[in-house]
Amino acid sequence: MTRIEKLKLTAFEKAGFDGYLLFNSANLLYFLGFPGASSLLVPADGQPTVYVYGVNYEQAKAMGKGFGVQLVRADENLLQKIATHAIGCKIRKLAVDNLGVTGWRMLSKALKGKSKLKLTNNYVEALRVVKDHREIELMRKAAELTSEGMKAAYEAVEPGVCEYEVAAEIEYAMRSRGAGPTAFESIVASGACSAFPHGGCTGREIRDGDFVVVDIGATSEYYCSDMTRTFVAGKPTERQTQIYDTVKAAQQKAFEAMKPGMPVADLDAVARNVIVDAGFGEYFVHRLGHGVGLEVHEPPSMGATSKEKLTAGYVVTDEPGIYIPGYGGVRIEDTVLITRDGAERLTVGPYSPTRQ
Amino acid sequence: MTRIEKLKLTAFEKAGFDGYLLFNSANLLYFLGFPGASSLLVPADGQPTVYVYGVNYEQAKAMGKGFGVQLVRADENLLQKIATHAIGCKIRKLAVDNLGVTGWRMLSKALKGKSKLKLTNNYVEALRVVKDHREIELMRKAAELTSEGMKAAYEAVEPGVCEYEVAAEIEYAMRSRGAGPTAFESIVASGACSAFPHGGCTGREIRDGDFVVVDIGATSEYYCSDMTRTFVAGKPTERQTQIYDTVKAAQQKAFEAMKPGMPVADLDAVARNVIVDAGFGEYFVHRLGHGVGLEVHEPPSMGATSKEKLTAGYVVTDEPGIYIPGYGGVRIEDTVLITRDGAERLTVGPYSPTRQ
Repeated sequence: MTRIEKLKLTAFEKAGFDGYLLFNSANLLYFLGFPGASSLLVPADGQPTVYVYGVNYEQAKAMGKGFGVQLVRADENLLQKIATHAIGCKIRKLAVDNLGVTGWRMLSKALKGKSKLKLTNNYVEALRVVKDHREIELMRKAAELTSEGMKAAYEAVEPGVCEYEVAAEIEYAMRSRGAGPTAFESIVASGACSAFPHGGCTGREIRDGDFVVVDIGATSEYYCSDMTRTFVAGKPTERQTQIYDTVKAAQQKAFEAMKPGMPVADLDAVARNVIVDAGFGEYFVHRLGHGVGLEVHEPPSMGATSKEKLTAGYVVTDEPGIYIPGYGGVRIEDTVLITRDGAERLTVGPYSPTRQ
Repeated sequence: MTRIEKLKLTAFEKAGFDGYLLFNSANLLYFLGFPGASSLLVPADGQPTVYVYGVNYEQAKAMGKGFGVQLVRADENLLQKIATHAIGCKIRKLAVDNLGVTGWRMLSKALKGKSKLKLTNNYVEALRVVKDHREIELMRKAAELTSEGMKAAYEAVEPGVCEYEVAAEIEYAMRSRGAGPTAFESIVASGACSAFPHGGCTGREIRDGDFVVVDIGATSEYYCSDMTRTFVAGKPTERQTQIYDTVKAAQQKAFEAMKPGMPVADLDAVARNVIVDAGFGEYFVHRLGHGVGLEVHEPPSMGATSKEKLTAGYVVTDEPGIYIPGYGGVRIEDTVLITRDGAERLTVGPYSPTRQ
């Protein structure tokens, strides 16, 4: 079954919609395989149709096998054009993945009461959260490239080097081996900034004794990866070692607990308890992890309030951290595939704050 | 006047709002100067308040001088929290820059009829479109870094090298000199893919005689730049030279016409007429350009249907192109600052399809 056929099975045959309208760019990539589309209308009867502006028209025609391709001219209204098509396809109950309030009002008006609109991304999300063989292959490739980037970080981090110089080496290592654009803005956060989980990457010079949090991700054909290691520039102090080893133990314990059926809230607790027991509970200021795929942050969210259970084919992060304001922080993160009976780390690298 | 004071002057004193609620991440960066905020509420009376989740809380407290910082816990609802605050500030007429339809409904309900909501980004957009001295300084820096990246492209493009290897050299040249993350996904599109304006960057090996479109942008402290050059790998044919020279003439003529007061639709026509007169009109499939700032595509849109006039302090692109399906394409683009009496190119590089 194609992905479109799977969507039709759940959203149309089981849930009673007779049209699905997609705007979210990751959803569009998921069904189309190429970027640049503005929208995709999937009717129960008739050909799925891609809407593109002139700048992307020839590319969509060349790559959009099995899809109708509609050119939206600069003087045309996209939503009006879609509404006319939806009315023509006699769509009565149209699911929309995502739309701003202005667009929603325009689309509702243009449909003239002939289609009932409902905002839901659930049916697409349910497909995307379980990765198929092709997706796992691409994510494995993205993770390998990310692991190569982290090797470069182990070489580059040392006192006197500035944060963006480390990022340059990492990104070159990934890109020159065939990675696409980074999955997100690389974080190389040193010194006190390592205590900010999203500490950025500046011109600050790394100093002897700094914690340096390096959080990076390569892409492979739009699929993301996500990996963090924390370094100590120079020789770790006893306190640094204690913090590091606590995070490492929490990350490992959560990894060992990962398998289909495991509630993600319980998994968050597995890691959190290690950190709480070591006396650092108040400094683990975020959830354990999140799903990864065409987006670097996608379902499932894996925190204390999450209701989900792990399922084979999920790809998620395992990333506990301890962040002590004014002092510094440590995070260790891998991208992990949930397998039939356990879990497999896709990113690979040493769990050590210094070069071995 | 601070940017918040300017917003209060136009949106509150002149237009009668007594609160502005911001969600758009570039808007948040514009007013706050640091990333990671989920929202910003600016009341007519009282302190502007930033809303952040735990993961960004310490950073916001450290960097958010002059702002109240509200922590949103994982079990709290952001919109409910904002609504309670807005009611407490007695906001009657609340402008919202941008919100999805689900969020809009939740916020409306939570406000219990005590504030009237209106969706408008106009007042923020009007501020952001005219760049101040500090912004121009950062955009000048971003453009310099981008020009360095393009120098690396001139060195790297040749038959036998693959597209992503060129991107790796470009991005390393920018990053190792202090650039932030790229402003957008670098395009290195060779051969027939050069005819797709957004042709991507793949593992394809560049061949002798290919057109290679290189479209790149560095950032400097979140401010973007945007620059395109097109190369011929090897010796250009007569037809390639004709196409190249046409685009070059169109780009130059539009640049010479740029000054305050110029309608952007007329400017699009200046470039388009050069291309039409040379017989390639049907192959210029996009607008002449767009504004650049904290986002790489922001107002003004500069096409045939645009109503705007250029104003001193605008930063825009000048980027005509000719794209012949199955054959190849050429685009030449600079980021341009509109000055008091004309225009200044911020990106700098040769207008030549080969190394000189």
